[in-house]
Amino acid sequence: MAKHLKSKPQLRVAFQGEPGAFSHEAIIQLLGSGVQVVPCQWFDEVFASLRSGGCDAAVIPIENTLHGSVHENYDHLLHYDHQIVAETNVRIVHNLIAAPGVHPANVRRVFSHPVALNQCLSFFAANPQFERTSFYDTAGSVKMIMSERLEDAAAIASAVAAEIYGARILRRSIEDDRQNYTRFFLLRRAGDPPLKLDDSRKKGWKTSLVFTTRNQPGSLFRALSAFALRDISLAKIESRPLRGKPWEYLFYVDLMGNVEEEKVQRALGHLEELTDLQRVLGCYRV
Amino acid sequence: MAKHLKSKPQLRVAFQGEPGAFSHEAIIQLLGSGVQVVPCQWFDEVFASLRSGGCDAAVIPIENTLHGSVHENYDHLLHYDHQIVAETNVRIVHNLIAAPGVHPANVRRVFSHPVALNQCLSFFAANPQFERTSFYDTAGSVKMIMSERLEDAAAIASAVAAEIYGARILRRSIEDDRQNYTRFFLLRRAGDPPLKLDDSRKKGWKTSLVFTTRNQPGSLFRALSAFALRDISLAKIESRPLRGKPWEYLFYVDLMGNVEEEKVQRALGHLEELTDLQRVLGCYRV
Repeated sequence: MAKHLKSKPQLRVAFQGEPGAFSHEAIIQLLGSGVQVVPCQWFDEVFASLRSGGCDAAVIPIENTLHGSVHENYDHLLHYDHQIVAETNVRIVHNLIAAPGVHPANVRRVFSHPVALNQCLSFFAANPQFERTSFYDTAGSVKMIMSERLEDAAAIASAVAAEIYGARILRRSIEDDRQNYTRFFLLRRAGDPPLKLDDSRKKGWKTSLVFTTRNQPGSLFRALSAFALRDISLAKIESRPLRGKPWEYLFYVDLMGNVEEEKVQRALGHLEELTDLQRVLGCYRV
Repeated sequence: MAKHLKSKPQLRVAFQGEPGAFSHEAIIQLLGSGVQVVPCQWFDEVFASLRSGGCDAAVIPIENTLHGSVHENYDHLLHYDHQIVAETNVRIVHNLIAAPGVHPANVRRVFSHPVALNQCLSFFAANPQFERTSFYDTAGSVKMIMSERLEDAAAIASAVAAEIYGARILRRSIEDDRQNYTRFFLLRRAGDPPLKLDDSRKKGWKTSLVFTTRNQPGSLFRALSAFALRDISLAKIESRPLRGKPWEYLFYVDLMGNVEEEKVQRALGHLEELTDLQRVLGCYRV
């Protein structure tokens, strides 16, 4: 094939879940709809796929405002050598979804992931005729009611899931708490060329890093002084157990600033004096 | 009944799981075998049982050296007004257990909780004839192989579980990683009289507290200064999302010291100047 006829290959982006999952929404928010999604069953598979070249980028959830951090993914960030190149927040909106032609009055069973079912308790209290039924995935429950052509069933999932599977939204935004956001990271292999991201409206920078402290009194306080004494704000700190050293911890920190800034460089240099392990996981616009 | 004939009522202690669960081992470590255990299906039920008087004390896991914190229980510690009165660490030893008379050569299926199965991968690699089968509970899998009298099956669970259900240990300590400990808290209602605990060998004290910081640069650093400037060591810090305030956090801290000591009192007074919410969750020997 002549080179000028070759179309630009689509970016392949891995995520955990079925098409239409909230991670898929995050991919669209970050990269638009023109990418090829690579659905994976497990988070570990997403990281491994990026390492082996099975995809060009990956999107993973890292924390939710109701449930907290996705600790498994913090562990994977340490064990795989990928780079965080962007973040995005997705508001978790749950919708009641059914096959076209299904009337709300005919719905008896409502399928979804147990976490999603539990986030719509007021809706179920107001509609006691609906029987809550656990399913392995939110988007997967839409896929199932469509492929089985269930006429007495609905699913709870994202609007993207309804669109992908050709289903209809019966009721929008049935979640109990609207302050429900999930934060996602876009990952690339270390050394991959930068992606073109539509982040022109974003003016700030965030840097994510992981470190261990020595097992001494005041060691975390001293580590944080590397940032506080330079007026560098921390957006988040998360601790995880250090394997093989019971009751010692790794700390994951998100600081406001670009890793190339002099004061951030100096803070990281200072931190290095105080820690045994230290690694920058990524620097991205916010 | 005349008062002098009334025997001293047994202490009722709630925990999550089946008898023989690791929480049950923690109860025995903390209070001996002479208590009445109250098994519950959910952690929430354990906390609620203590509140309603369904038990006199409760034991909950709070962190594991491989998996990290049990975040659900951190959330319950905040929402229920119970007091932590003791802690203990249980080494997680997994044993291959079968009904008496079952020969290892006849075992085909091995039942246990998926986490326990995943912690014995070298054992399964060395014994490919065993088929791993997920079950809802470690101790529950021993209960099941005994009540069903399965002759080709074994379970993976604690030694206490084997003892309780009259089963036999075929192989001791088949876990991959011996640095696998779970830390448990003993809880009482606020205002309950102190329990007699065999903690004479314990010389130190730990105090657990929870606080929020104001959403300002350096606020966690300043909060930790209340301890660091008084040479008070922190054993642990854990963050959890603050509901209704996306991207703000609660911090749970374990400090080395007794809440009655002057320097701890002063540190808590100092911290109060810097936080909106602050509560001592308990003070106990370590």
